[in-house]
Amino acid sequence: MVRLKRKRSRYCRRLFLAEGEDLLTAALSAGIFPQAAFVDQGAESDLTKRLSPDSLIPGRPEPEIYLVDAEVMSRISGLRSGTRVISVFDFVDRRLSSRAPAATARGPFLFISGAGDPGNVGTLVRAAAAFGAAGVIMGPKTADPYSPKALRATMGAIFQIPLYLGIAPDELVSWADRQNLAIISADAHRGKPVSEADLAGAFVLAVGAERGGAPERLLAAGQVVTIPQAAEVESINLAMAGSVILYEAQRQRRCRGSGSL
Amino acid sequence: MVRLKRKRSRYCRRLFLAEGEDLLTAALSAGIFPQAAFVDQGAESDLTKRLSPDSLIPGRPEPEIYLVDAEVMSRISGLRSGTRVISVFDFVDRRLSSRAPAATARGPFLFISGAGDPGNVGTLVRAAAAFGAAGVIMGPKTADPYSPKALRATMGAIFQIPLYLGIAPDELVSWADRQNLAIISADAHRGKPVSEADLAGAFVLAVGAERGGAPERLLAAGQVVTIPQAAEVESINLAMAGSVILYEAQRQRRCRGSGSL
Repeated sequence: MVRLKRKRSRYCRRLFLAEGEDLLTAALSAGIFPQAAFVDQGAESDLTKRLSPDSLIPGRPEPEIYLVDAEVMSRISGLRSGTRVISVFDFVDRRLSSRAPAATARGPFLFISGAGDPGNVGTLVRAAAAFGAAGVIMGPKTADPYSPKALRATMGAIFQIPLYLGIAPDELVSWADRQNLAIISADAHRGKPVSEADLAGAFVLAVGAERGGAPERLLAAGQVVTIPQAAEVESINLAMAGSVILYEAQRQRRCRGSGSL
Repeated sequence: MVRLKRKRSRYCRRLFLAEGEDLLTAALSAGIFPQAAFVDQGAESDLTKRLSPDSLIPGRPEPEIYLVDAEVMSRISGLRSGTRVISVFDFVDRRLSSRAPAATARGPFLFISGAGDPGNVGTLVRAAAAFGAAGVIMGPKTADPYSPKALRATMGAIFQIPLYLGIAPDELVSWADRQNLAIISADAHRGKPVSEADLAGAFVLAVGAERGGAPERLLAAGQVVTIPQAAEVESINLAMAGSVILYEAQRQRRCRGSGSL
């Protein structure tokens, strides 16, 4: 299991380690059970109860529980935070299919391109779930959402929102086209102020690494929006920019829904 | 100078270390010069030019430049990131005075209470500057904005926005009262949806540590707002929540300014 700390091993086996009770709780409340869990000997009683057959959906295989001591725990952990449980989950990402995603009525898809910081990637997944996005799609050079830091930043949202990985900009553009989804890209400078753009419809919001913005291929594929800022300051960071635009889209949907403008 | 890595030494001497060229550049463009700078020997030519008498405001004392090798540099650094320059600055925070802050016409003040994570604190300072806030006021148990991690997260915004430190909630409430500023607190659950609250006026926005929200004293002192979220998800993090509300306030001011509703 220690091998799953390495990205390559995770992707070979399509398994990842989720550290801590918050992530386990989020998974269980989304109806997702781990394959196995390493539980600190001292924490056995309450944690193992949650994974016992009584709590499980009938027909689902029971997770294997390993009671381990603090030393083994810290060897499995990638965060060195003295966690009481580390769970092993199957990957949750899906294929971008040609079937119309029913969720589109909820909110936009978020496309994240070239974001190298796992904390930013996790925070964006969390924001997407919080603001009712339909799903999160990641480009090929984006930090691994299954890494310990990214997972922690999602606060469990990774179990709550559809996730698609390794999608190149070209693939995204043709998929969006087939799904009748507009592409709206965020850029720090070029673009329409975000509150003046129409974000109440069905679209993919493309955000890119901090200084680069969304890839040119996507900027050229649709509208470009900008978050207006006081002149002197560096653009706000990627996670903040994504959160603000997802918030704005939610605000416009709520507004539209309530009949007022 | 290595002593300034410790918070106590920073506050005794009211001096802090700013690592990297981005922070130095942000300070210089705000007209703020360091007292001294440690420059990597190899980076001498272009960096020392920026701090030479020709670039300085007449009458300002010239910063002392120390050319040091990589080993000394890494001993001064708190970030271990191989930086080429570390500058020594006077503290930039001010006293909350009874004079009416002229800047109020711009945007709200942001009050941050009990935020322990320096990255969140720095990000909020950056968001406040980006969205035209009048200033950032910090409560007593908030992470030090002069710590290396917080400074890095501000991306230099710490030199661009008025900063007030160590202000207790009671002091804030009476100051706001004298300044005719409303207090609007953010809370994850209780409160009016933020887009339905009036954020175009003069107010202090109070945000608190992730799970605690703003202090009760402030929640009781005025309106409470909530960022509407999809039900299942943990509240978005402090930096995101603050950014979104500051964005919303800016949107409402721009809207009001343009004559439309």
